[in-house]
Amino acid sequence: MDVDLELAPKVKRAAGAPCCEPVVYPNVDRDEAVRMAEVAKALGDPIRLQIVDVLRKHAGKVCVYELVPLFDVSQSTLSHHLKKLRDAGIVDAERRGLWAYYYVLPDAVGELAAWLG
Amino acid sequence: MDVDLELAPKVKRAAGAPCCEPVVYPNVDRDEAVRMAEVAKALGDPIRLQIVDVLRKHAGKVCVYELVPLFDVSQSTLSHHLKKLRDAGIVDAERRGLWAYYYVLPDAVGELAAWLG
Repeated sequence: MDVDLELAPKVKRAAGAPCCEPVVYPNVDRDEAVRMAEVAKALGDPIRLQIVDVLRKHAGKVCVYELVPLFDVSQSTLSHHLKKLRDAGIVDAERRGLWAYYYVLPDAVGELAAWLG
Repeated sequence: MDVDLELAPKVKRAAGAPCCEPVVYPNVDRDEAVRMAEVAKALGDPIRLQIVDVLRKHAGKVCVYELVPLFDVSQSTLSHHLKKLRDAGIVDAERRGLWAYYYVLPDAVGELAAWLG
């Protein structure tokens, strides 16, 4: 659309001239919204989204070295993305000897998926 | 876990000592990941997520004034969030007289929902 949408909110509504029907309140409360938004934000990068896709497809746990050939980014960039995914509770990792193995946490995206679906 | 996960990626892998099985490639290609990540990023804020929840629940189109009482933020902040949701292709708006009416675009989150589900 080519109209200036930013104009409308700046116009004061005249008393007795409602612009539309009252809306209903959100189904999701603030705490649910904060949790789901954190997951969504972590998925808001194409590489992180593809990392999660690979980890979900892969039955086992995956170390960062196995991810490097799949993405056109450095290992340190991948580690940075994995940290963001861990901070959001989407993936976790376990250490075996020298390697850290990443995996998707069960139901990590379940709440967001249910809301979107 | 309390181990230092950041150590592992910095250790060079010895030749012939694979850390894990080769992983599979992502199911989602780069273009799909970019599209879905854009939607996820726009939903990566609790207020934007709740705005979308309200608009999905509400059968009609809603102007920014009807949203103000639902959220503890200013009208200009709401307009800013609505702009981000429009830029991501999740909502759109139409102008009727002085007011801009927002609504969720059909199937805006369908691709992301299908991938998450």
